Amino acid sequence: MDEFMRAAIAQAQKSLSEGGIPIGSVLVRNNQIVASGHNKRVQEQNPILHGEMDCLNNAGRIGSYKDTVIYSTLMPCYMCAGTIVQFKISKVIVGESVTFPGARAFMESHGVEVVDLNLPECIQMMEKFIAEKPELWYEDIGEL
Amino acid sequence: MDEFMRAAIAQAQKSLSEGGIPIGSVLVRNNQIVASGHNKRVQEQNPILHGEMDCLNNAGRIGSYKDTVIYSTLMPCYMCAGTIVQFKISKVIVGESVTFPGARAFMESHGVEVVDLNLPECIQMMEKFIAEKPELWYEDIGEL
Repeated sequence: MDEFMRAAIAQAQKSLSEGGIPIGSVLVRNNQIVASGHNKRVQEQNPILHGEMDCLNNAGRIGSYKDTVIYSTLMPCYMCAGTIVQFKISKVIVGESVTFPGARAFMESHGVEVVDLNLPECIQMMEKFIAEKPELWYEDIGEL
Repeated sequence: MDEFMRAAIAQAQKSLSEGGIPIGSVLVRNNQIVASGHNKRVQEQNPILHGEMDCLNNAGRIGSYKDTVIYSTLMPCYMCAGTIVQFKISKVIVGESVTFPGARAFMESHGVEVVDLNLPECIQMMEKFIAEKPELWYEDIGEL
């Protein structure tokens, strides 16, 4: 994997070390990291700060997103996918979609390129988390 | 209109008075306001805090959203609509969709009930804002 997915995984691990949900994200433009973030549902008691949303929050107002690529350790849910579509981020690179299929078809139907790296490291991280804290995971994806 | 849309409009007017984008939102459960919010792109330099997102942020972790109704002065964009779908909010009541058609069909295709009150007060508020600050408006909806 490239340095950007590596940075997204580091964000996920940071969240886990804080007692949070292990999903990380990085926004890239011109082959450089613009911002990074991770899920903060637990840390900030904030339901809208999924990894991708925290990353975009941290990026701030950057003008057009059309030359950006967003990395996430997990396939984006409808909240994050809707944001990617609305902001016109052109490409999404994810660590995996085995533990959560997310909204891939929705993004692709709006012209977003989606690349799934299917990384065992990401799959194992989420499988372990979901097995240990299922109630937190199902809360995070609105499955209550 | 009911007291909840009145409260959403008051949030939009508060944002306008702060130099921000005039879109407000209220989350209701059991006929009571759970939380309210407004667009904070300008106030907090935050691109993800549309009115609906700020409202859900302010609501915090409330468990299931299935008995909630979200009010917004304007039809939700894909970010906010994706969030409504993911969180399984069952009903959306909007002030208008004349100045921005938003993602109504997407929400309805996921079983969300959408009611458009088509209020002249909301239409005029947005028309005036878009005429005065078009660059801010187009930034907010990712049209750059």
